[in-house]
Parts: sequence; C-alpha cells; structure tokens
Amino acid sequence: MVSQLSPLPDGPVTVAGWVETVRDQKKVQFVILRDESGAVQLVNPATRDLEDDATPEQQAAAALTETIGTLAHGTMVRVTGELKHDERVKLGGLEVKVGTLEVVSEAIAETPIAEDSSLDKRLDWRFLDLRRPEANLLFRVQTTFEHALRSYWVERDYIEVHTPKLMASASESRAELFEMEYFETKAYLAQSPQFFKQMAQPAGFGKVFEIAPAFRADPSFTSRHATEFTSIDAEISWIDSHEDVMAMQEQALVAAFTAVVEKHGAAIEAAFEVSLSVPSLPFPRIPLAEARQIVADGGYEIPRTDGDLDPEGERRLSAWVKANHGHDFVFVTDYATGIRPFYHMRREGDGSITNSYDLLYNGTEISTGAQREHRVDVLIEQAKEKGIEPEELEFYLDFFRYGVPPHGGFGMGLARVLMLMLGLGSIRETTYLFRGPTRLLP
Amino acid sequence: MVSQLSPLPDGPVTVAGWVETVRDQKKVQFVILRDESGAVQLVNPATRDLEDDATPEQQAAAALTETIGTLAHGTMVRVTGELKHDERVKLGGLEVKVGTLEVVSEAIAETPIAEDSSLDKRLDWRFLDLRRPEANLLFRVQTTFEHALRSYWVERDYIEVHTPKLMASASESRAELFEMEYFETKAYLAQSPQFFKQMAQPAGFGKVFEIAPAFRADPSFTSRHATEFTSIDAEISWIDSHEDVMAMQEQALVAAFTAVVEKHGAAIEAAFEVSLSVPSLPFPRIPLAEARQIVADGGYEIPRTDGDLDPEGERRLSAWVKANHGHDFVFVTDYATGIRPFYHMRREGDGSITNSYDLLYNGTEISTGAQREHRVDVLIEQAKEKGIEPEELEFYLDFFRYGVPPHGGFGMGLARVLMLMLGLGSIRETTYLFRGPTRLLP
Repeated sequence: MVSQLSPLPDGPVTVAGWVETVRDQKKVQFVILRDESGAVQLVNPATRDLEDDATPEQQAAAALTETIGTLAHGTMVRVTGELKHDERVKLGGLEVKVGTLEVVSEAIAETPIAEDSSLDKRLDWRFLDLRRPEANLLFRVQTTFEHALRSYWVERDYIEVHTPKLMASASESRAELFEMEYFETKAYLAQSPQFFKQMAQPAGFGKVFEIAPAFRADPSFTSRHATEFTSIDAEISWIDSHEDVMAMQEQALVAAFTAVVEKHGAAIEAAFEVSLSVPSLPFPRIPLAEARQIVADGGYEIPRTDGDLDPEGERRLSAWVKANHGHDFVFVTDYATGIRPFYHMRREGDGSITNSYDLLYNGTEISTGAQREHRVDVLIEQAKEKGIEPEELEFYLDFFRYGVPPHGGFGMGLARVLMLMLGLGSIRETTYLFRGPTRLLP
Repeated sequence: MVSQLSPLPDGPVTVAGWVETVRDQKKVQFVILRDESGAVQLVNPATRDLEDDATPEQQAAAALTETIGTLAHGTMVRVTGELKHDERVKLGGLEVKVGTLEVVSEAIAETPIAEDSSLDKRLDWRFLDLRRPEANLLFRVQTTFEHALRSYWVERDYIEVHTPKLMASASESRAELFEMEYFETKAYLAQSPQFFKQMAQPAGFGKVFEIAPAFRADPSFTSRHATEFTSIDAEISWIDSHEDVMAMQEQALVAAFTAVVEKHGAAIEAAFEVSLSVPSLPFPRIPLAEARQIVADGGYEIPRTDGDLDPEGERRLSAWVKANHGHDFVFVTDYATGIRPFYHMRREGDGSITNSYDLLYNGTEISTGAQREHRVDVLIEQAKEKGIEPEELEFYLDFFRYGVPPHGGFGMGLARVLMLMLGLGSIRETTYLFRGPTRLLP
C-alpha cells in the first residue's frame, strides 16, 4: 500500500492503485497514483522520437512513455520501480521511478463527474465520487466510530441482536410504511428495531445493541431524511429512569469520539477543517419547556404548534448551549406526552410529560431515547389514547404479560452523527449509497 | 448482577431478575432467581398460621411468605437480603436470605411453553424461549464471534460498509425476490450485498466488510433456509485469485473461533456438550471434482445432475475430511461454471471452472466465495450466457468501466455458523427471530 512506502529504504518497490492525474511534460512524466491509503508520485523520464537504429531498451522506454501519456483517470495500474526519498517532493517526500507499468483495468477517459458537479450528479456516480480522499476518510471515521461503540458495549456484556426487518405490522406508525407481498400475506419493513429490541428485555438479555438498516417511506427531501438509514440502537434493563439511558449513551459516545479523535483527528482537521475534540461528561441536560423558553428569549418564535422544537429552534438551542456550557451536545429532556409514541413511559405523578429525551449535536437532533412503559395495562391505555388498536399489537403486548423488567433505550442515526461531526451539509454525503423517494440507483 | 455475587463477602446485597422456580416447603421457601448473568438461590424461612396477637414483624414475615408462595415463573422481582456463602448450596455455593422482595412486574402464571414444546411452539413464544440459559449463551457466543471478526478486519484497515437493502433491480436472481411499491416505482429487497460491496472496489476502498440482513423470498422449509438472514460479507482488492480470499477468510475465522473458545469454551461444553477448538491453518482445500469422487468412492451417488454437492454429499465429504485431515472445515474449490453466477471469474485457460469455492463446516455449507470478473466485456458476455439482459445491469456494469482492481470476496451465513458450531438442528434456534414463508410473528 502507498502508505507503507514511507518507512522503506530507497530501492525496488511495487505499488498498485488508480491513476489520479498525469502530467506529461516534454522530458519527464509525472503520475499521481492513489490507493485506499494515500497517493504517491511516479516519475518517468520521457523517451520520444526514437532514431531508426534505437535499441530494444530504447524502444521499450518509448512504449512506456506512450502508455503513460494515454493513461486515463481511474486506470488501475500495477507498477514496479525504484523508491527514492526526496524531501523536495511535496507529496510525502518520496517518489517512485517507474520500471514497469501494467495496466490492470482500463478506464473510460471522460469522467462523468468533476469537482464542481452537483451532489445529485455525484450520487449518480457514487463509486467515482467515493474516490475522493475525504470520502474515503469519512467512511474510515465511520468504521472507527461504530467499532468503538460496539467495543464499549461488548466489553460491558451487552448482547448484539439482529432484529428482523420483515414484520407482520408496523413498528412505529402506519404512516411511512413500506408494504410488500409476502407469500400468502403482507409484510412490512421495520421502521425501527423498537419492538424487537424491547423483546430482549423479557427474554432476559439484560442489555442489547444493534446497528442495522431501518426503513421509512418518508416522502421528504430534506438534508437529514432518507428512506433507508443505519440506526444505532441500544436497550437496557433494570433502569430507574431515562437518566440511566442518557448516562449510558453519553459514555458510549465519549468512547467512540475518543477513538475517532485519536485515530483520525489530524486527518479530519486537514480534510474537513474541523477540530474535533472529545466531549466532556456529563452532557448538559435541559427540559424541553426550558429549552423552548431559551429559544424564545433569543428572539425566535417556533412556528410548530405541537410543543416540539423545530430545526431552527434546535440550532438556536445548540448555539446557546455552546455559548453557555461550551458543549456540542445537549440532552433535551421531559418531552410532552402529546409528541411522544405510546410506549414512552410518562412521568410518575405528571402524565403530561414523558421519561424521554432527544439528543442534539451541533444543532441537530441525532437521537431519541426514553424509559419504556412496561406495565401492560398502562401500555394498552396509552396505545388506545394514541388511536392505536391494541389488537394490532397483540404480539408486542405479550412481551409484557409474562414478566418484564423496567427498561429503556435509544435510537441514533449514524449518518446524522457523521454529517454533524464533519460539518457536512447532508446525510447524502455520509451515507454509502443514499436512498430517497426518487433515488434507488446505483 | 447475579454473577457478581460470588466474590462479595457475606452481608447485605440487592439482586433483581426473574423467578425461575419456587419450592414452597412447609418451613422454608426456596426461589431460584435468574438474570442475564446466571441464577441464585433465595431462601426464606416460612412464617404461617399467625396467632391473633402476632407482632407487626411477624405479620410482615407472613405477608412475605404468602407473596413468595404465589410467585409465578417469570415474575420480575427486586430483592434485598443477606448473602451467605455455603458450599452445601449446589447453585454456586451461595444463597441470599430474603429481607424484602418487591414484585416489579407480574407474570401470567400459565407459561405457554414447556421444556418439551415443539420448536414451532417455542418460536411462537420466542421471548420466553430465549430465557433458557443455553439461548442466552448462544447469543453471547454470537456477539463474541461477530465482534472478533469485525476486530480482525478493523485492525487490518478494512472499511465497514452499510450497503442499501432497497434496490431498483435484483442483486442475484429474479427468483426469490421480494418486490414492493416504492413511491412512483418498484423496489426490491437485496438478496445479498454483492453488487454494492463490489462497488467499493472501483471506489478505491480496498477492503470492506459488512454484517447485515439479506432477504430471499425462498419458499423452502429446510432447517437451513430463512427469508431473512444475517449475512457476513467481505470483499478485497488486488487479489491474484480466490486463494487470497480463502486465506483471508480462514484467518478471520480462526481469530473469531479463538475469541469464542477463550471466552465461552467451558460454558459451551457444559450447555451444548460440544468441545470447541480453534481450527488449524490452513483449512483443507479440495477441488469440487475430487470432492465428488471422494463421495462416490464412499458409496453415495449424488442425485443432483448439475454437478454440485447435495446436503448428504456435503456431510459425507466433511466426514471424510475429518477422518483424513482431522479438520472440521473444508474449502471445496473450482466450482463448475454452470453452477456459479455470471460474476464469478472463470479459470484462465479453462472456462469450464470458476475461481470460486464453498466453505463447509461440520458437514454443511456456510459460505461461498470467489474472485470476481472485473473485465467488463467478459462480464457482459457471461451475463448474456446466463440469460441476463445487460440492460438490466447497467448501473452495475458501470462500476467496471472507469477502472476497477482485481477483487474477490465471500458471503457467510451467521446463523448457519452458530448452528454448526453448537451442534444444533436448525438455524431457527440460532436466529433471534426466525422469518420463513409462514412465520412473520412475533
């Protein structure tokens, strides 16, 4: 790999990758060769305009010069040559003098996207778009982030679950549901692993997590919605309230941010001009009513009438938290019952608020968490109140009829975290292959 | 947690979990309390038949006795009491004398499944079925197995990808495809991440992996098929042949088995009567033609006419390998072109065989791997030959038109590995919530 060249002594090496650019000068040719680990400069003294009595060596050199002159961007080549460290070379302080160059896979010379292509156009050619070093870095950051989260949980005896995505009924709401023929009946795609990660609690699993796709037939075209997204979920037993869930989530996030900063902090700074730091514990907590007051005091009237924050309200609240607490995260707690699903537990003694929260990061909601209602009679009442027929939920309600510990958990959108971490404008940039109402290809 | 009691000194403790059994004797009551980490015996001296002048303490003791006497299996309780180490107690050499007992969640007394319930009945009540200690262990083993695989890859700079499960066309074949309405068009559920993990190669990701659901509208009811299953996939660039893929896969598996044996070897032996060991490297490799000859020499005529092995053939081959090589795994290589998909690379100089393999473990296929054809003109020819219209594959073929390195990878069924590792009879036992043609619930 290119990144492994630097510590090697001057001498023969082999490298393979794709041609990023060719600079074909009269007397010398330069090729920037890139692989998944980095880029290196290849150099070849040009041999042109041979005399009739050229030697076989001269003929071979001329052929190599001609080959290099015609290399299209993206051509996959394998090169043997001589490594030479030379601090005058800007790219890594080394170059490889080409000995042989094998074209492993040719490329169409006309690349359909350019640096100034629109995001939509880039997504049409996502496999070319992903060749950008920043895109490569982005998915390495994601890999590190996820693995650190999983490691945090695995080290604490959580069980990883793979809940089914095919369901006999809705997991969240009848709206935004993908439906399909399923043999003699119909199936629906899970909008979240909610019901099935809760199933792990009466099953006695104690603590579970899952990172998996979720599906919403959401017709919106915002920068933070997709019809398919990667959801990070955890659910834990024997909690006293949503406070236990928040404490777990913030600690897991600190573990993940620590891993990302250690491994990629410098590269992120260079590529995204973001100086990433590990958030301090605990994250600030602000009840929703207070959060709305802070936004109102800041001179912004939230147009929503349901009592929730809107995206502008979230941004303003986060800015206030950053200014007053120096923190990029904030838990907004105590959401009103009216804007929470039936399975959120309501506050003991005050049925108007729930034991729930949203987590905002750099101005945008990335996660929702809550203590769940585990008393089946209360659960049924709350479902009815939300207009859901308990008959549709029988399989779910059964989970609560044979003993279930108090429990809670959260769901978090992976692409949103990455978008906000790296200061990007859309989850389309931070999703490997975005899926939206008008995008199923490639 | 119960497992944390053992090192504690005698004295006050709190434990929480569910009631497994109650033994209500005249003078003393015993409760087996279980949580995700293990089980502990609770003991309570019975107080019954109070005199009229009983003290408040006696009345409380009598109430506790009555409560314990009525505890149904599954009832979630929180108990404070006195821990006492006593080597005469079979269960862990300790017991907890009950001080207070709080019923956190009641349970219906009639449990719908028993030890002798059929598998199908147990799946109807999977959340109760999963309370069995062996089921809990099984998913802990799975967690360790997966995490060790991911760690193996992450430590080697693989990128984790989340390929979309919603597609505009089939990923493998028109058969066994789930189709759904998708806004103004139709979408299909990915049968594998095949096309999109290959996309990572022209994208310059180098090495990728994914553990995610895959979907097949497979109407069969065998012990090793499901309509939704967890697929473990990896794909790597710059290989010379499928040998490089096999070498990577066997090393990753050894890392995963090492972790499982270290962490759960003794528990697996106790629960499943399986003495698990780490497989030796390299795994045996046998070309398919030779494998069929071995099976034929053993006196079994494979009824399939397509040149493949059948399940009985796989069992016999594995038995032969175990007897002759002392190995539980075998790579069957060089599959005939006729029984491989169009994207498998064919052998240079012999188009009748492919650079592909199946991996068998304890008698059953768990994985298929191959070098992929990366030359787009050859790929188109092979697709046509298999009766696939290249027009349907345009988005996939584009991946090969702008430069792509030689590459290959494998897919492996997680539930199958677990089934064969623990000597179980069906992937329904090793899937959190099995999905089949007639099973979508719970």
